[in-house]
Amino acid sequence: MQLGMIGLGKMGYNLVQNLLDHKHDVVVYDVNPEPGRKLAALGARPADTIEEVVAKLSSPRVLWIMVPAGKIVDSVIDTLLPVLEAGDIVIDGGNSHFKESAARTERLGAKGVKFFDVGTSGGTQGAAEGGCFMIGGDKETFPVIEPLFRDIAVDKGYLYAGTNGSGHFLKMIHNGIEYGMMQAIAEGFEVLSKSGFDYNYEEVARVWANGSVIRSWLMDLTESAFSKDPNLDGIKGVMQSSGEGKWTVETALDLEVATPVMAMSLLMRYRSLETDTFHGKVVAALRNEFGGHAVVRSDS
Amino acid sequence: MQLGMIGLGKMGYNLVQNLLDHKHDVVVYDVNPEPGRKLAALGARPADTIEEVVAKLSSPRVLWIMVPAGKIVDSVIDTLLPVLEAGDIVIDGGNSHFKESAARTERLGAKGVKFFDVGTSGGTQGAAEGGCFMIGGDKETFPVIEPLFRDIAVDKGYLYAGTNGSGHFLKMIHNGIEYGMMQAIAEGFEVLSKSGFDYNYEEVARVWANGSVIRSWLMDLTESAFSKDPNLDGIKGVMQSSGEGKWTVETALDLEVATPVMAMSLLMRYRSLETDTFHGKVVAALRNEFGGHAVVRSDS
Repeated sequence: MQLGMIGLGKMGYNLVQNLLDHKHDVVVYDVNPEPGRKLAALGARPADTIEEVVAKLSSPRVLWIMVPAGKIVDSVIDTLLPVLEAGDIVIDGGNSHFKESAARTERLGAKGVKFFDVGTSGGTQGAAEGGCFMIGGDKETFPVIEPLFRDIAVDKGYLYAGTNGSGHFLKMIHNGIEYGMMQAIAEGFEVLSKSGFDYNYEEVARVWANGSVIRSWLMDLTESAFSKDPNLDGIKGVMQSSGEGKWTVETALDLEVATPVMAMSLLMRYRSLETDTFHGKVVAALRNEFGGHAVVRSDS
Repeated sequence: MQLGMIGLGKMGYNLVQNLLDHKHDVVVYDVNPEPGRKLAALGARPADTIEEVVAKLSSPRVLWIMVPAGKIVDSVIDTLLPVLEAGDIVIDGGNSHFKESAARTERLGAKGVKFFDVGTSGGTQGAAEGGCFMIGGDKETFPVIEPLFRDIAVDKGYLYAGTNGSGHFLKMIHNGIEYGMMQAIAEGFEVLSKSGFDYNYEEVARVWANGSVIRSWLMDLTESAFSKDPNLDGIKGVMQSSGEGKWTVETALDLEVATPVMAMSLLMRYRSLETDTFHGKVVAALRNEFGGHAVVRSDS
């Protein structure tokens, strides 16, 4: 079928490749014209503006937005709204907050445009070769866009999850679980590294990835990481985060749900950003105050 | 090759099936004669006592112990020691504590008997059809028993991990990671259940099991559990544990390693065993003391 892809970063670009592989007719746009030119060589139809993407599609138009979450999504929708018509469909395949997706549903819905919030997982490789999609939006309209997901998802890898917001909510929770699973795996290797045994971490990850209860794609990736750098000497233990773990914990707090593992995983990421901590100074100072315990001096 | 299996519970029984499938000559024993009789029908040679197992094997003998961790392992070794000879090999495939394995290595080693501590993962199905094995013990002797593991493990599913204790240590940490991964998955579904969206949990687990970053055997099992009971109405949220998660956290404490996710996963299991808590009473009482906040009365 025909659709427009707005945003040709790693994920958008790979999704377009995947869509082209499945013979879809894709009009593409990015602020940077380079990826559009490359995709044109693979059969996509490049456009110079968002308006031109819309003009090149026939009604009902399907627009897939694949840009960083936040204001950029709203800015794309600002540009789209005047040129869209009732019956058109907008898909946000990025990592938007589910509450923003609910608001965008209303805004687009006021003009008769149907909105789908789609959580995308599986990484860039998944986008290109078969990903995982969690889809929220109008149930009656979903069959119109379902053929896309049937083609670009792995087998059993897409789900119409429910009303608007439910797709991005599911992706948010997926990422919260991901934080917990990653931290659990990582703590395990931390203990191994201090165990006194002489483990080969790549081999450990390999055996855990094959036949064990904890076998998982993350364990496959752990094996891959150790195969490149046996003790990860080249990487500092600084754990960045891009928002969805925080949203998961914020949501759990709003709903008053105890999620200690997801919360601790997030907090350990924040801790890793510090080389020293103020709370550490406070505890050390207090031990010194009441018990005369030695402190480590800043200049030592 | 030839070996004796002592302990024919779910794991031992299935391992023997697996070994027989691969044409090994297995002498079997259990305090309960029933599984031995069944395995005899499949080609195993049953024995009535542990001594008889040993008598039926030719030197160097290979004895695989598959009994519950703790004193039962020592009691089997007590019986074995007088009838074993230098050069014989004893494998403990159960979930023994790595420190006990180190002690047993010394005890058996004093008589020239080689000991291997083998962590076994993959559940009963893995034991029967291809499991995951983490093996600690004498490196020079390992090639003698390696053919067994090559046959009964899944592809890439066994690892000679290092000196004695390293196999059971690895299995212990595997289980600690398992606790964290399970709690992370479970917290995710807890939030979904309170989200206000109308998720079908089986379908959610299914989409997360296919193409997502958190795809894993545990997610496959989650899908399976929800397929049998869509909201798990038939199961109470009481989370038992069988020791290895506790050992992991104890070991992390001994090594002074921060493992908050593995620790919280264990503590949440303990919390789940209580229908009310004394700490809850204390906090409620204190809120009442300082702020006059209402308490929930025991008789309400």
